Amino acid sequence: MEWTLAHRAERMNPSLLREILKVTELPGIISLAGGLPAPSTFPVDVMRTACDKVLRDHGEAALQYATSEGYGPLREWVAAHMNSLGVPVDADQVLITNGSQQGLDLIGKVLTDAGSRVLVETPTYLGALQAFAVAEPEFISVASDREGPVPEDMRERMGQGASRARFMYLIANFQNPTGRTITAARRKALMAEAQHLGLPIVEDNPYGDLWFDEAPPAPLASIAPEQTIYLGSFSKVFAPGLRLGYIVAPHTLYPKLLQAKQAADLHTSGFNQRVVAEVIRDGFLERHIPDIRALYHRQRDAMLAALAREMNGLDVRWTTPAGGMFLWLELPEQIDTLPLLKKAVTRHVAYVPGAAFYANGARNNTLRLSYVTASPAEIDTAIAALAETIRDELACAHPAAVLATA
Amino acid sequence: MEWTLAHRAERMNPSLLREILKVTELPGIISLAGGLPAPSTFPVDVMRTACDKVLRDHGEAALQYATSEGYGPLREWVAAHMNSLGVPVDADQVLITNGSQQGLDLIGKVLTDAGSRVLVETPTYLGALQAFAVAEPEFISVASDREGPVPEDMRERMGQGASRARFMYLIANFQNPTGRTITAARRKALMAEAQHLGLPIVEDNPYGDLWFDEAPPAPLASIAPEQTIYLGSFSKVFAPGLRLGYIVAPHTLYPKLLQAKQAADLHTSGFNQRVVAEVIRDGFLERHIPDIRALYHRQRDAMLAALAREMNGLDVRWTTPAGGMFLWLELPEQIDTLPLLKKAVTRHVAYVPGAAFYANGARNNTLRLSYVTASPAEIDTAIAALAETIRDELACAHPAAVLATA
Repeated sequence: MEWTLAHRAERMNPSLLREILKVTELPGIISLAGGLPAPSTFPVDVMRTACDKVLRDHGEAALQYATSEGYGPLREWVAAHMNSLGVPVDADQVLITNGSQQGLDLIGKVLTDAGSRVLVETPTYLGALQAFAVAEPEFISVASDREGPVPEDMRERMGQGASRARFMYLIANFQNPTGRTITAARRKALMAEAQHLGLPIVEDNPYGDLWFDEAPPAPLASIAPEQTIYLGSFSKVFAPGLRLGYIVAPHTLYPKLLQAKQAADLHTSGFNQRVVAEVIRDGFLERHIPDIRALYHRQRDAMLAALAREMNGLDVRWTTPAGGMFLWLELPEQIDTLPLLKKAVTRHVAYVPGAAFYANGARNNTLRLSYVTASPAEIDTAIAALAETIRDELACAHPAAVLATA
Repeated sequence: MEWTLAHRAERMNPSLLREILKVTELPGIISLAGGLPAPSTFPVDVMRTACDKVLRDHGEAALQYATSEGYGPLREWVAAHMNSLGVPVDADQVLITNGSQQGLDLIGKVLTDAGSRVLVETPTYLGALQAFAVAEPEFISVASDREGPVPEDMRERMGQGASRARFMYLIANFQNPTGRTITAARRKALMAEAQHLGLPIVEDNPYGDLWFDEAPPAPLASIAPEQTIYLGSFSKVFAPGLRLGYIVAPHTLYPKLLQAKQAADLHTSGFNQRVVAEVIRDGFLERHIPDIRALYHRQRDAMLAALAREMNGLDVRWTTPAGGMFLWLELPEQIDTLPLLKKAVTRHVAYVPGAAFYANGARNNTLRLSYVTASPAEIDTAIAALAETIRDELACAHPAAVLATA
């Protein structure tokens, strides 16, 4: 039997990265690769109580088909949360999704055709590239510095006429993969440029609540709510296994996203929505999130200390994230972190090679580390092993580098 | 702010149907429109026990990110279930989805490009048309009689060369919307033709377990498993609010569907999968489904009796489904059931006008009734009201009909 595949499916290939990352799940490997929240932070006991209450009080309604928009009280909660962040929205603008990943799928479907230009950060979130890729757009990387994407380059990459970019995708807080936060000044400059260009902004904010010393600046959506589609998630502050996220969209765009949601899977589990709404309605997250922040803060500090100790003299640079889950390393130019991963795994440590996070012009000497899944002791061991791997590689690579420049 | 929409999104419009159906949700209306399973069949109490057990024994794992393929024991259960239906598959071929609606979205993404020919029954499931439409295929209706789609017409509609149909979509058991079951002889003839043509079959089977007097013939997938993608669902035999369905696909195609799933939303809720696996692992469905069958059987009988009683002399014909949830009416040719719905609603009864279920060549004098949500007493009242509506319409329409043929 021969299957004729869609063009988009022909281009889907089991990536080398995916194959290598399978190895990292073997027992004995300390994985700094995955973006798995610390399971000790999952509110298992309050979930038990809430599941029982929802099923006891509203069992039949919770298990029936529900509206595509989402569960009313949860949408109200999201709207109030957005208002507390300085974004003026109402519950009618909230669409509940299966994690924010589904939000990316719906936005790609509604805003992009094959060949449409989509602007992204350099580097950017790999999962967004995968979600958007289904609609076969052309990704354009906007040059980014320590403060965030550069407005002048955004203008440069915008395109003209029919090929004008459909939107720019951004993670403003504790970005995946770099850990970078766009500064308040840069947010203002970026959004001024976006307004000038008429460029819609897709703002993904899964990590914003996970700040360490102070809250990040207000979301981009607070500056130009009519021009911004905002994505939020319960995965990092509650639990990812329930698959609950949300889109907050301008009124004009909402009906299209809603129809895309209905076509995609009718609606998100009403049971899960009711359970989470039951848990968080009395301020649970306000009490719970500070514990997650404190834990991740300690783990980030452990990783920064280990890096400072172990990478000494190796010409390795790293970011200092002010929140979130990830930290970004730049190794010496001659090291390609994809083949290096195999060697790291033999030393029982895993990471994600950075090249996967570039829409174009990948820098192969970069990698992403997560500090939220492993314990401080494991982080110490893992960073030492990573440093050993790099040291060995530099020793081997050096003759070649000399040859190449000779 | 002006948004440039994707071509597919420009074509999405809040349908007249959707607007009208909103009215049917008003209190006091007996709705025979929705496809809502009877909530009294939802296993609320066993769910309470299972939620508690899963959270107590495996809380952190259940709330963590999980694999895109789905939860192992649930995939094993599906494979065993398929084997019991005569379809030789293993668990590696099972992909857990957010209801079978998501399976349709993934299949459309993997198998169709803009303009690809997709064959469907006449009429066919509206939700499938909506899910597939995202990839912008060309839908072609295959002529269908009382036994199912006609193989000769399938050959006729297949197309040549690059425009060969990518697949044919079918519901073989108790079809939505007609209630029709494809006979064993027709299944054989259809699949022989599909094999001759090299035409992949997408077999959607959400209702197959809900038979009344005897089980339907074996799935199409049992005849040509390498050529068939099969979709199953827990929505009709367990509860729709958990959004759990599955795709069973040939090994060659599975990796593409898996990547589409990962891009769409990473994975289906691991918590929901574990809870359902916990409930059904000891044979719960084998004890539970006979109760659903008996209930729906009684309600179908109530509707058939009411139709025979009330439609007398109105030149209305209907199907006699041997299982499932729906029954299909053909009214006299001159009646258009879309405008008629407004009049029916004033008599406190609602249905779904049939035109929405045709990919092309809609027959406007048809409508779909569900007998699973309303009680037998409500069904009696509603069918009497529907008959009154039709009688009035015929009285008004008659002069026009005479004029038209004059």
